[in-house]
Order: sequence, then C-alpha cells, then structure tokens
Amino acid sequence: MKRAMLLAAAMALCSSPDTAIAAASPQTAELEARELPPLFAAELERAKNFVDGMMGKGIVVPVPRDPGGGYTHEQHKRNYKAIYLGGQIYRVTGEGRYRDFVRDMLLEYAELYPTLGDHPAKANQNVGRLFWQVLNDAMWLVHAVQGYGDIRDALTAAERAKIDNNVFRPAVQFLSVDSERTFNRIHNHATWATAGVGMTGYLLGDEDMVERALFGSDKSGGAGFIRQTELLFSPDGYYTEGPYYQRFALLPFLVFADAIERNEPDRRIFQHRDGILLKALRTTIQLSYQGYFFPFNDAIRDKSLKTAELYDGIAIAYAQTGDPSLLSIAEFQGRTVLTDGGFAVAKDLAAGEAQPFPFRSLLLSDGPDGDQGAVAILRRGKGPRHTALVAKNSSQGMGHGHFDKLAWQLYDNGHEIVRDYGAARFLNIEAKEGGRYLPENTTWAKTTVAHNTLVIDETSHFGGDVRVASDRWPEQHYFSDAAGLQVSSASIEGAYPGVEIRRTLIMPDIEGLEVPLVLDLVHAASNAPHQYDLPLHYSGHIMDLDFQRDSYTAERPVLGEENGYQHIWVDAIGALNEGRGALTWIHDGRFYTYRFSGNGPLRAILGESGANDPNFNLRREPLIILRAMREGEASFVGLIEAHGKYDGAAEQTVASRSRIADLVHDRVEGKDIVRLTQRSGQRHAIAVSHDPDPEVAHSISLDGEEIAWTGFAAVVELAGGDN
Amino acid sequence: MKRAMLLAAAMALCSSPDTAIAAASPQTAELEARELPPLFAAELERAKNFVDGMMGKGIVVPVPRDPGGGYTHEQHKRNYKAIYLGGQIYRVTGEGRYRDFVRDMLLEYAELYPTLGDHPAKANQNVGRLFWQVLNDAMWLVHAVQGYGDIRDALTAAERAKIDNNVFRPAVQFLSVDSERTFNRIHNHATWATAGVGMTGYLLGDEDMVERALFGSDKSGGAGFIRQTELLFSPDGYYTEGPYYQRFALLPFLVFADAIERNEPDRRIFQHRDGILLKALRTTIQLSYQGYFFPFNDAIRDKSLKTAELYDGIAIAYAQTGDPSLLSIAEFQGRTVLTDGGFAVAKDLAAGEAQPFPFRSLLLSDGPDGDQGAVAILRRGKGPRHTALVAKNSSQGMGHGHFDKLAWQLYDNGHEIVRDYGAARFLNIEAKEGGRYLPENTTWAKTTVAHNTLVIDETSHFGGDVRVASDRWPEQHYFSDAAGLQVSSASIEGAYPGVEIRRTLIMPDIEGLEVPLVLDLVHAASNAPHQYDLPLHYSGHIMDLDFQRDSYTAERPVLGEENGYQHIWVDAIGALNEGRGALTWIHDGRFYTYRFSGNGPLRAILGESGANDPNFNLRREPLIILRAMREGEASFVGLIEAHGKYDGAAEQTVASRSRIADLVHDRVEGKDIVRLTQRSGQRHAIAVSHDPDPEVAHSISLDGEEIAWTGFAAVVELAGGDN
Repeated sequence: MKRAMLLAAAMALCSSPDTAIAAASPQTAELEARELPPLFAAELERAKNFVDGMMGKGIVVPVPRDPGGGYTHEQHKRNYKAIYLGGQIYRVTGEGRYRDFVRDMLLEYAELYPTLGDHPAKANQNVGRLFWQVLNDAMWLVHAVQGYGDIRDALTAAERAKIDNNVFRPAVQFLSVDSERTFNRIHNHATWATAGVGMTGYLLGDEDMVERALFGSDKSGGAGFIRQTELLFSPDGYYTEGPYYQRFALLPFLVFADAIERNEPDRRIFQHRDGILLKALRTTIQLSYQGYFFPFNDAIRDKSLKTAELYDGIAIAYAQTGDPSLLSIAEFQGRTVLTDGGFAVAKDLAAGEAQPFPFRSLLLSDGPDGDQGAVAILRRGKGPRHTALVAKNSSQGMGHGHFDKLAWQLYDNGHEIVRDYGAARFLNIEAKEGGRYLPENTTWAKTTVAHNTLVIDETSHFGGDVRVASDRWPEQHYFSDAAGLQVSSASIEGAYPGVEIRRTLIMPDIEGLEVPLVLDLVHAASNAPHQYDLPLHYSGHIMDLDFQRDSYTAERPVLGEENGYQHIWVDAIGALNEGRGALTWIHDGRFYTYRFSGNGPLRAILGESGANDPNFNLRREPLIILRAMREGEASFVGLIEAHGKYDGAAEQTVASRSRIADLVHDRVEGKDIVRLTQRSGQRHAIAVSHDPDPEVAHSISLDGEEIAWTGFAAVVELAGGDN
Repeated sequence: MKRAMLLAAAMALCSSPDTAIAAASPQTAELEARELPPLFAAELERAKNFVDGMMGKGIVVPVPRDPGGGYTHEQHKRNYKAIYLGGQIYRVTGEGRYRDFVRDMLLEYAELYPTLGDHPAKANQNVGRLFWQVLNDAMWLVHAVQGYGDIRDALTAAERAKIDNNVFRPAVQFLSVDSERTFNRIHNHATWATAGVGMTGYLLGDEDMVERALFGSDKSGGAGFIRQTELLFSPDGYYTEGPYYQRFALLPFLVFADAIERNEPDRRIFQHRDGILLKALRTTIQLSYQGYFFPFNDAIRDKSLKTAELYDGIAIAYAQTGDPSLLSIAEFQGRTVLTDGGFAVAKDLAAGEAQPFPFRSLLLSDGPDGDQGAVAILRRGKGPRHTALVAKNSSQGMGHGHFDKLAWQLYDNGHEIVRDYGAARFLNIEAKEGGRYLPENTTWAKTTVAHNTLVIDETSHFGGDVRVASDRWPEQHYFSDAAGLQVSSASIEGAYPGVEIRRTLIMPDIEGLEVPLVLDLVHAASNAPHQYDLPLHYSGHIMDLDFQRDSYTAERPVLGEENGYQHIWVDAIGALNEGRGALTWIHDGRFYTYRFSGNGPLRAILGESGANDPNFNLRREPLIILRAMREGEASFVGLIEAHGKYDGAAEQTVASRSRIADLVHDRVEGKDIVRLTQRSGQRHAIAVSHDPDPEVAHSISLDGEEIAWTGFAAVVELAGGDN
C-alpha cells in the first residue's frame, strides 16, 4: 500500500502529459484507488533495476568504434534502453532522478552526435552513425524518442532546444535524407526508420517529418510507412520472411501506429487495410506452438512469444481491442510494458479476465495481394498438447528464406514431431562466429534436404539461388479445416526444371485409430529420369523397423558431397523392392509410426545430421530419406500414426505397436486412393479426387471394391477383413 | 458436500474394521466433518475408475500361460490390483458392489489355484504358479491379501473358508514351503515372499505363518523379514543395488512393517535397528534430483519419486512420524493411497502443512555393516535447480551393478550435466527385446568406459566379472560437507591388477568464479606401462574447444573392438603434447567449461555413443575421453566451471567464455596443488594434502610461492597476476 500511495503522490506533482509521443501514464485515480497490478509492478521494478544499474555506472556515451556485439555497440544499445525505460519510470512515478538521468544522457548525445560521420566499422553500404548499420541507428531513435517524449515537457527551453537540434533533428536528417535509399525501401529496416522519423515529427511538432515518414521522402505515398503496411504483410497479416522475422518486423509497425493513433486519430491507422496491423499481431501469435514460433526459414528456435517486441505488441493491441484472449498471451509472457496499455493488461489480468487465445486452423496467404502461396496451419484439439500441422507453401521470403517449397512440420503432445531445423546460428555466442549465421546455415540449414520436402538429383530447389527462387511460389489448390478431415494441397512448378511437384497433407479421424493421423501424398512427374529423395526429419528414438537393411555399424559414411548431403551421416540403408516399409519411434512417452509406400522400389536411408562439421556447429538429429529412381511419375505416400504411450512412472506401456496392418496406395485417373487395414480387421480408404468442388461425386473401382465419395477428399469405410 | 455425506452414511453401515491387515479406514467423524481432501478424493476416483473398468469386463481369471508382458501375466496383475483397490474402496465407501467384486474374483481364484502346478513359461529355477516367476506370485499375494483383509469380515463363513483354504493357505504353502530356497534368501525377492506370507498369517490368525515370515522357515532368525532388514540395507539406509532397485525393494518392507506395527506394536518394528526402515525411505528420497533417481547401476532413467512404491511409503512413514517434509514429496507425487496414512497426508497437505524436504549433502555407507564403500552426495544451493554431485564409491551391487568404481555424476540448473547412462532397456516395449534388458546393457551400459571413471587398457573394472567385482569395494577416505569446500575422496584397489586408483572430487567456492565449480583429481599408479582413459559423459552442445584436433568429417570410425569401445563413434582426436586443454558446451542456456591437465601428453578423443548398434538400441550422447600412455604414475585433473547464460527470449548472452585463463597442477610429496589464474588476474590454489586430520598444517613451495593450509584441502588465495 505504501508504494501505491507514494506513487500517487508523485503523480500529483507530475506535469500533465503531452500526448505527442509518450504513451499516456496510468490514470492517477486508478493508482490512488489500489495497488499497482502485480505484472505492472514487477515491470516497474525490473525497469528500475536496469536504469538504477546504468545510473550507478554514470553516463557513458562512447565515440562509436565497434561492430555488432562490440563494446560501443552494446553501450549505445544499453543507452537507448535506459533512455526509453528511464522516461517511462519518470512518467509513472514522477521521480525526478530518472528525468535528470535521461536528460543528462541526451545532453551527452547532443555533444557527440554532431561530430559523427559514417561509423568506422561499416558493415555494408547501409552504414550507420552510432552503429555499424543504419538499422541500429533507427532502433536507437525509435526508443530514444519515446524516452525523450516522456521527459521533454519537464526540461528547460534551452535543454529542449539543444537536444532537439543536436540529437533528434540530425538523427532524422541522417535516416530520412542522408540514408534515403534505405528509408524509401519496402522493407522492415525502413519501417524502423520511418517509425523513428515519424515519432520524432510528432514530438517536435514537425509535420514535414511526419509526412515523409508516412508517405516517403517525396511524400507521394509510393514509399513510407503507409505503403509498408500495404506491401509487407499479406492480406492475412503474414510477413513473408516467416515467423521469426515477423515478430521482429512487427514492433516498429505497432509502436508507430500507436503514436499515429494518439496524434492523428482521424487517420484510423488501426482500421487501415481492413485492420492489417492488429491482424498481423494475431497472425504472429497463430504462428506458434506452445509459445514457440514455427522455426521455418532462418529462425532461432528458442524464440518464443516471450520477446520484447510482443510485450509492446500485446499492450498496444489490448488497448485497441480489449480482447481478453490477448491477456492469456500476456500471462504466458509474464511481462508487459510501462504504458497505459500495459497497465490495462496487468489490471485486467489480475482481475481474472483472461480468456484462452483462439489458436485454430487457418490458411495464411503470402504476398502483398495474397497470391504468392500460403502457409497452411491445421490444428486439432485444444491446449498446450494439441496437434498442429504446418504446410509451408509460401514464397521464398527473401534472403532469410530456405529452399523448402511444400515442406511441412508436425507438432503433437507438446513437441515438434516432424521437425524444421531452423537457422544454423548460436545467437550472440562469441565462439560461434561471433554469434552470426554460421557457414552451415548455407551448407545445411537452407538446403532442401535439411527439410521435409522432395529433393531431386541431390540439388536444392531453384539450384539454391535466392533470385531465381524469389520469382516462383507454390499454388495452394485446396484447404479445409473441416473437423475430422482437414486438408492442405499445393503444388510448385519450377523448383526443378520441367518437374511439377504436388503435395497433399490430410489429417483425418479414422475409427479404431488414435489421433493425430497424417496422410502425406507427394507426386512428381518428369519426362526425364531422376533420383527423388523424400526426407522426414523426425524427433525421437527408433523403436522398430519392419524392413531389412544394411547397417554401417563399424564405419559411418557420409551420404553425399554437396547441397546438404555432405552433412548427413548414414546409419543404414534398406532396399525395399516392394516400395513399402514402416518405422516406429518414441518421443516423450508417445509412439509414432511412419508407414510409407512408393510407386516402385524404394531405398530407405536412415541417417543423422552432423557430418562434415569439425566445429560442432550442427545439432545431431535423425532423419529417414525415401529414395526412388524414376522415369516418369514418382509418388510417395506417408502415413504418420500416433499410438499408445509409455509411462515411466507407472512402468506401463500401451500400444507400442502400430494399429495398422497394411497400407496400399493406388493412383487412378489422377485420383489417390489409400486403403488402410487395421490389425483389428477394420478397413478404410482415404480417397482424394483433387477436385475442390464439394458437390462433385467420384467413384473408383479397385480390386472389385467400389469406392465412392464427393468432394476433394473423404474417408470411406470398407468391408472389414476377417480378424 | 453431497459426496461426503453419502460417504459418511455409507461408512455408518459398514462393519467395524478388523485391525489384522486392512489399513484402518479414515475416521467417520472426519468424513462427516468435511469434504474429502482433494488428493484423497482424486485417488478414490482413480481407483474407482480402474475397478469399475475391471467390473465392466467381468471377472477374468485365466489359466496361466504367458511369460512377462503376455496376456495371462498382465491379466493376473490387473486382477491383484483390482482386488487390492476394490477392497480399499469398499473400506472407504462401504459400497457393497466392490466387496462383491473382490469376493467373486477371489472365489474364482479358489477354483483355479488348487489346479495349478509350475507355470508353463518357466523362466528360471524360481518358477511361479500364477506367473512365470515366483517374485510375481509373491507380489500377487502382498496385494491380494490386503484387498481380502478389507472385505473378509463381510463374507459368509463358507466364503471365507473357501478363499482361506483354496487361495491363501496354498499360496503361503507355495511361497514359504515349496519355494523355500527363495523364501530364505537375503534378497528383495524374499522380502516380497515374507511380506505376503506374514500378512496372510496376521489375517488368518496363523501364528506359524507369521513366525516363518519374520524369522525364516526354521524360525531361527537366520533368514526371514527381520534378518532382511538387518542385511539388505546399510546402517545409512542404502540398498546396495542402487536407487532404482532401492525404491522397488522398499515397498514390501514398509507394507509388512506397517502390518506388524498394527498387529504387534510391541515388536517396535519401526524402531528396529535404529529405525532402519524409515531411514531407508528417507535415503531413497535423498538419492534423487528433481524427483528422478540417480540412474547409476541398472536403472530406468525416467523412474522418479512418482512411483507406486513411494505413494505407499510416504503414507506409512507420515503416519509413523508426522514429518511435514514428507508432505512436500506427496505434493510432488500428486498421489497418495487409500489408507489412514494416505488420508492424513492428503488432509495435512490440503491444510498447507507441507515443508520442503531437506535434501542435503551426505555420505551413505554401503554394506550391512557400512564398511563396503559408500555413495557420497554433495549438494549446493536449494530448490529444483540446485547443484548435486554424486560420487559412486559403493560396492558392486550384485547382478544389477555396473563396473564403474569411483564414477561420478553432476547435476546443475535442473539437469544432469555429467551423466550416467543408466540401463540399456526400454521397459515393457515389446519391439525392444520384449521390454527386457537389451544386449547393449552388457556390451555398453555396464562397461567401465560408459561411465565417468578411469579405464585401463580398454578393459572394464574387474574384467567385467561380477563375481570378482563383488569381493572388492572402494575405500572412502574423506568426506566433508563444509560450506564452500565440499569434498569426497576414495580409492579402489584391484579394479585392475596391481593398480590403485584414487579420486578426489571437490566443490569449492572461489571468488570471481561462478558456481558450481568442481575439481576432479584422479591418480593411478602402476609399475607396468598402461593406457589410461578417463571419459567424461556430458550433456550439451560443444561451443568451443581450445585445442587443435583431427576431425573425422567424411567417415566416422569406431573407437575400439570390445568392452564398450565398439559402441563409441569418434568425431575428432586432439594430440595435446602439453597435456592440457579445455572444452566448453552449453546446456539449457548455461555454459560449462571442462578444463583438464594430465601429467604428460594426452590425447583428447571426442566421440558419441551409438556405434555398432544396428537396432538403434542406444541413445546417442557425447563424451570426451582423455587418454594417457604412462609407465608409473598417471594423473588427471579436471575442472568443471559453470559460467554465464544464454537467454533466447531476450537474445542475450553473458559470459559464454570461461573466466579461467590457466590451470596448473602439481603433485608434490603426495599432495595435489591446482593453481588457477582467472582472466581477471585473480589467482587461487586448491591445495589437497589427502590427510584427513583437520589440525595438521601443510605447506608447499612452488615457483617461489609458499602455499600453506591446514587439513585435507583448502582454497588458498595467491598474489594476483597483472591481468
């Protein structure tokens, strides 16, 4: 109680807030009425700890010298965080020492900034002033202008003039004029720059800055923030680089939009383009499982919703929408921000108003017009252990994209069961190439064979050339989130010359079988003879294999020479003349059987990542590759069946064997029929017409059995065997 | 409330309980007064679900046919569980259908039992009747007699006679007379048999049975339950086979003791041998980290305190002691049993009376007289992420023992950092050798090289012969749990002919370094030339190595031919002519550097388990082996230093590099001096006299520096370098 009263008293002394930049502080009345809500109080404590620590070391504004990770780089980062948080603390508590600290630091910057030219550790053509690249300078400005906004009214006119003219105006000049090329790009680096410039414009009352930020240097609207909101997200709020970069790109969008809304509510920025910014936030959350982002493309796998960008994002979105499902995200994060929105989040969370976030199946189109492929997410069940299937039918996603058209992932029981490697990078760990992307990001993580998709002739899609890859994307033919039979079907042309690849993923419920059950149909056709490799990167320990194989027990060879193959150790190879086999593994007490069939002989290669890796840069993870030599059509059918459980505590094991006795695949007149016989004798067909029209009836006769259904796909019960 | 009143009403109808076998039911007054405590209510619900499920299928008492895991085996196991729980439910609720179900099932057994001879799937000479081995028959009796005790008073005289005479008396006859050899062993199988026989004796009022159970077939006391309590646990309550079997062995001890206490309190069974049975329970708990048992010797790694044996154990011990720290174990378990003790646990837990269990450093002697080696546990810090070091200086532990004298493990930050493989077994998973111990349990898991201890000439300790190994054990020379300088020191003679090996593990606090810090001194001496290999099985991903090495990047060889070496893949070998090196890995966001030094050139072999494993029976886990060719003395010094952290959410990395610049080891006059220089310039020596007398002063002069200390070991601050 004591703290709340102190705060309230301090607030009363505090000058009334300027609406320009600073997020308005929590209402005094509210603070008087009760304790700070726990999440907000903890955030204030955390911020004070940080800023107090910075104060203890005195103001240190070094002449820029070091590249990313180096001392001056890190110190300027710490400084902008201190300016940002210091301002917020002052606004919330009214404690003058925070105002003075922010002021004094900005006055130091006012001495330094005018002396700066290009940063000496210039990384590329986009060189910064305080930092080695202009992106970091933009991030500095976005944070610093917010902290400055929180204290500016409490400074003398002379102080204001000095800081305005020697720090913020030159910073804006640098970002929006000197670095015009970056500023006018349609790219998230430009979003940071326009956000910094526009927010400075609001704070200094400089309409010219605001206009440039919103509509580009020439104010034509061909570039600038508004255009970015139109081109950088698809109509479904998907950001083309993928989830890891989506959450990074999101922050300047939401922070600047929040400032626009407060300064120029008539712009209705949050309604712009059918509410694209809030949609993008929700999409960011949908692109996660158990709080972790789907790690496709370049992604640090341990990046989760617990990330600074989303603390701000949730607070801003909650302030706009009051949507109680956002509170459960804040609860998971255990964090918020020191703004009005953050206060509301903390208060309503403490009041028990959180609702579960509605994770669901959805199709996220890619590209500004939504016509450059899509990411399909199929979900089944609720809660942290639900099933999620991700089909990556999106476009290349620029330089951070991987060469993995039509790849997929499966999550179940709280784990990633069919895996995506993510990026080969140990972020900020000095011994690993200074924490940058490792060479193996190119030689392994980006290659096609490192993903769950088809590789032809041991080369990557588009020859691994990002320029070629950026001109092509998959076509999503069908998507259904119908309960009991969810489907995604897509194809890609041009990943390999003259080959069309089509993949259909189906998550059916079938009586007698547990869930999840995933059917994977891959079909390719070419006039030329090729080697087709279909890898499956799974998580788990092999329990059973139903095929003979030659094992490399005494010396372990490498699978190939290049395009990722040089990183695969071979454990065993099975020659499957019937083209069929099954592999069972266990992961966290749950069994999974991968049962597969090809349209001709297969070789099953059991391997592991980590070969040709003298510096131990790669994780070692298992995979199976189905290899087919084909002239003409190549088809693969895979069925992943979850079954049973192992309970170590109770020492009980249930259904460690697959429940399926047989899987037969037929392709007739372009239709796929997969007949399953269970060990119980029950029989079903999964029939796929590939015709999206739900009304059209289809019928196939196979071995004297008539299989009839309507629409794209169906599960058809067949007469049972005699078991 | 409704349920509680129904229960109370039911209780009132229920006949007053017999004290013989049944744990007395919760007091009616208590039930009337309030709701059942949640843990107890949940247990009742769980038991009803199970028994109702069994009822739904009708009474099925098949003629014995199958071995372990087979249908008749599992059905008889389900049956004894249903008898046991059905009786308890009847006692708690008074619902007649449970009494009738237990009665009818026992009447079925009364038809079957007299017809039985040796089980057809005889596994070994200890063949059972209902099951393939007598142990399972004993477990059947222990459970069934308890359930029978709960309903016997409510049966007609004719029913009682039939069940007494056709089931329980013949079962006792079988276990204690026909299987006399097993019955009179000093072994946990015999504990189950004596418990079943003794508890039947109490129930039937048959003093002869009780006497045989307590004192052996000839009632001399040379065998039987009492003698078992004296010989099967060390004075510190340690069971020689190790933690995994300790928790298994414990159940019949505590359950029978509980029956003895209720029927013959004058025996003061819980006070016998200085309270050995309750001590053994506490020791069982101490032998765990984060709830999981230390997995040394044959052990299923996912076995935790959440195990049926300990639900009973905690309830019985709590009833005896009222110790509130046991409640926190029950809270972790989330389970209890349907007895008076279980009710008290649930009630007091709900009342918030739980206290943390006092996990601590301790030395557990091995052997009936405590003179056959010891297990030393050094702990630092509190809570689930505390540090624990386990030094396995115990005796062989019979057939389930591993050949790993002086091996050790380290837990930190919630994880096993220096690992013990445990057993090579997938319990009850049919595809893995029917769930039995795998061949690799012998060829890998039991071998010396699979552990963190010294291997000479690529052979296992005692030539891998359990009979030889059982005659020798380490000598524990010193143990100290002094804060800031914990120590365990032990030696073994005869693991290899003519070689004495001594190992000293020290956990010091040193200014400027993080914790944990573990110093490992290994010394061996032999007149003959030998190859000395010191493996370290660690958990994590390599971040950095400070030595050159030849990498097997394109083809991965196997390290050796036999004794476990055939299961090690080689990644790289470094030739360290100075005999020094360091390896840094990361595990769950924490860095660990293993810095080592030998008394001459070393080869550092980086490898992984999993070679020669065509059926994928082994886990693949990293190791480093330090290899020294020596004639005379061989010494190894290892220092494990935890440092820094990696925070994926915040994208922050702190102290990813070791803080130590240099480690120098000298051995002078049998004393070990390890001098550490930190990168900050700070210098310390860890000085070890190996003299346990705390009063004796020691002094060594090294490079003109005088290092003086008293007692077994000390950290001595040295004059700093100039950074």
